[in-house]
Amino acid sequence: MHPVEFIREKRDGKAHAPEAIREWIRAITRDAVPDYQVAAWLMAVYFRGMTREETFALTDAMAHSGEVLDLSGLGPTVDKHSSGGVGDKTSLVVAPVLAAAGAVVAKMSGRGLAHTGGTIDKLESIPGFRTELTKEAFFRQAREVGLVIAAQSADLAPADGKLYALRDVTATVESEPLIASSIMSKKLAAGARAIALDVKVGKGAFLKTREEARSLAELMVAIGEAAGRRVAAVLSQMDEPLGRAVGNAIEVREAIETLRGRGPADLTELALALAREGLELVGIPGERAEEALASGAALQKFRAFVAAQGGDPRVVDDPERLDLAPGVAEVRAERGGVVTELDAYRVGLAVLRLGGGRERKGEPVDHGVGVYLERKVGDRVEPGEVLARVYHRERGLSEALALIQDAYRIGEAARPLPLVLEVVRAP
Amino acid sequence: MHPVEFIREKRDGKAHAPEAIREWIRAITRDAVPDYQVAAWLMAVYFRGMTREETFALTDAMAHSGEVLDLSGLGPTVDKHSSGGVGDKTSLVVAPVLAAAGAVVAKMSGRGLAHTGGTIDKLESIPGFRTELTKEAFFRQAREVGLVIAAQSADLAPADGKLYALRDVTATVESEPLIASSIMSKKLAAGARAIALDVKVGKGAFLKTREEARSLAELMVAIGEAAGRRVAAVLSQMDEPLGRAVGNAIEVREAIETLRGRGPADLTELALALAREGLELVGIPGERAEEALASGAALQKFRAFVAAQGGDPRVVDDPERLDLAPGVAEVRAERGGVVTELDAYRVGLAVLRLGGGRERKGEPVDHGVGVYLERKVGDRVEPGEVLARVYHRERGLSEALALIQDAYRIGEAARPLPLVLEVVRAP
Repeated sequence: MHPVEFIREKRDGKAHAPEAIREWIRAITRDAVPDYQVAAWLMAVYFRGMTREETFALTDAMAHSGEVLDLSGLGPTVDKHSSGGVGDKTSLVVAPVLAAAGAVVAKMSGRGLAHTGGTIDKLESIPGFRTELTKEAFFRQAREVGLVIAAQSADLAPADGKLYALRDVTATVESEPLIASSIMSKKLAAGARAIALDVKVGKGAFLKTREEARSLAELMVAIGEAAGRRVAAVLSQMDEPLGRAVGNAIEVREAIETLRGRGPADLTELALALAREGLELVGIPGERAEEALASGAALQKFRAFVAAQGGDPRVVDDPERLDLAPGVAEVRAERGGVVTELDAYRVGLAVLRLGGGRERKGEPVDHGVGVYLERKVGDRVEPGEVLARVYHRERGLSEALALIQDAYRIGEAARPLPLVLEVVRAP
Repeated sequence: MHPVEFIREKRDGKAHAPEAIREWIRAITRDAVPDYQVAAWLMAVYFRGMTREETFALTDAMAHSGEVLDLSGLGPTVDKHSSGGVGDKTSLVVAPVLAAAGAVVAKMSGRGLAHTGGTIDKLESIPGFRTELTKEAFFRQAREVGLVIAAQSADLAPADGKLYALRDVTATVESEPLIASSIMSKKLAAGARAIALDVKVGKGAFLKTREEARSLAELMVAIGEAAGRRVAAVLSQMDEPLGRAVGNAIEVREAIETLRGRGPADLTELALALAREGLELVGIPGERAEEALASGAALQKFRAFVAAQGGDPRVVDDPERLDLAPGVAEVRAERGGVVTELDAYRVGLAVLRLGGGRERKGEPVDHGVGVYLERKVGDRVEPGEVLARVYHRERGLSEALALIQDAYRIGEAARPLPLVLEVVRAP
């Protein structure tokens, strides 16, 4: 089909034939369609949406636009994905819990961008840890340790990479079929049999309402199941940051504390919810998740994983070995009361300003800077008490302090929200 | 404003501030916005539309994106524009009628593209006729003859040229504010005090319904009046071609016959309707149009105009001097009855296939080929009688003959439609 006809078909509210979508994505992948035609089509999709059949075809075509990993020889593989949040170190807890409970985690992860961090950046704060692995090393470690996390290769769903870059600069990010197909195409290409999705809702998340989140979750579950995978999605609240640590090394510390059974309640609850879902999807009883955590098996699995990827395993027993930046500044309460709000976005932005994240792809990240939130929503605070500690190297400090001060709202009483809102499973 | 913010504003159904639109068009004119962002914005405009205030600002910004002709020293200048039709040689009649009646026509015209011809191509079928004029020659002839028609310069509304090229390949042509601003930006830049618009409706036109045509006409009149010009629009039926001649030289012949008072009734009627409107807009009584035609003053003005632009004025008294292609083929009626339909699009396409038009900009045009329609809607025809004569040089002949045969529908009775449907004037 001629590109103009294809764009007009969507503009006029008609559904594309699956084969036409596959042809379109093949053309985009080999740069045979000019960006302006893709951009016009993306905006038409924004307005007209896509049927489930179209979304399945789009996701499948993007998943097959590059290499598709074949993990079938590895056993009950489980992947995990989060729609992104501030302080979200859940993967660092879920992955070893899953592996310790009998699943196999052979996972590709991304780097952070803007105000949210990435698992790969966090892992690289462990001295010696390697995230660029050969395919042979990746599969060997998956078989031997049952847990491997590598930096996502550009060969995975390259069509999604092109579409995403264009959506970002044409105001066409906020489209449910485009969001769902973007996430799921990478997950399908990454090859795991089962996928546990963490869909964040709230002020600190991309999705602001529970209805939007549920709808997206249902679509992603349907896409995965249509492609022969098992998928479940946990809807979780993201108004304030998850846990108390935001940064790279400081989040790995908190993840290890959680694996030692001493982590914050919210992080523990969410990690276990995701792990339970992932296990059930591959036929392992969900309660094995709690057992793996309580017995120390998950911590042990994490230690083996760190060592296998060249990291210093002593950090697992002594998380203080993870170097934080030397400067420590405090943000104090200007009045007493109860913390009623703690804006995750502003906290994320503060860490970005400190150098802990990147504005543009490819920028280096300072692993040592970060924020530790001494008070979270619902906590009482006296005037002048410390709300948060900021680990810094001077860079961006005054802006970060102002952002964090601004992130706190102190009032009379907080309305506590449940963390895990609901789970969306295949019908 | 950042381009992504500007696109998002339109996507979300908000109105752009006039100054933001001007800034956007300035950026497009100097190639400072990538095509993919412009394309996404065009599709958002397609879905969200524009307020009148936005459309006025867009038109004004495009009109001022290049040179704006100052015709104010020339007196009561009148321009004429047609939304494009098959066999539409109306400008060749209207312009000399206006000039003979006391208005000044100093006009820029375009070349034909696809199945519709352009005034410049038609004029170039007159031996010696020059359409590329210096600005000095253009103004001198306007003052001395009161009538000059030159090929439109690329400096006129260059932002429109860029936007139009992009709309064409992104399925965003069919948007009322984009159509209206495209037409009117060129007319405003061309500088005439008054503008008579011919808005075509019907199967052979871009606009299929009278409601669409009226709405577009009202918008264009409002744009012009907001810019301090006088504008009126004639809505005319375009199901079958206008007149009986379709091609270049053959249309000039028919225009001259019409100026001699012996032209087809439909062409005469439409040309006079447009001339009347144009004259009234500059305060000249409309009946001067009929007088100029009946007295031969319009024919004399046409002769002076042809001579001034280097053309052979003898064609005006002896139109047979305009060379038609030597081959003549006939299309005959396969059955008897009444012509109930004559598809203008197919006839236009036939002339294109013969070489009388261009598929792509810059292609040369064969001025001698064309079609003469011996029978039009409402005419009786016996089986085997000639419906049309095709002037050709072999190229594309069989396809052209099939298209013309196919363009005719013969049945029992025709429902004749009025040619001039209504006139839209400023309130």
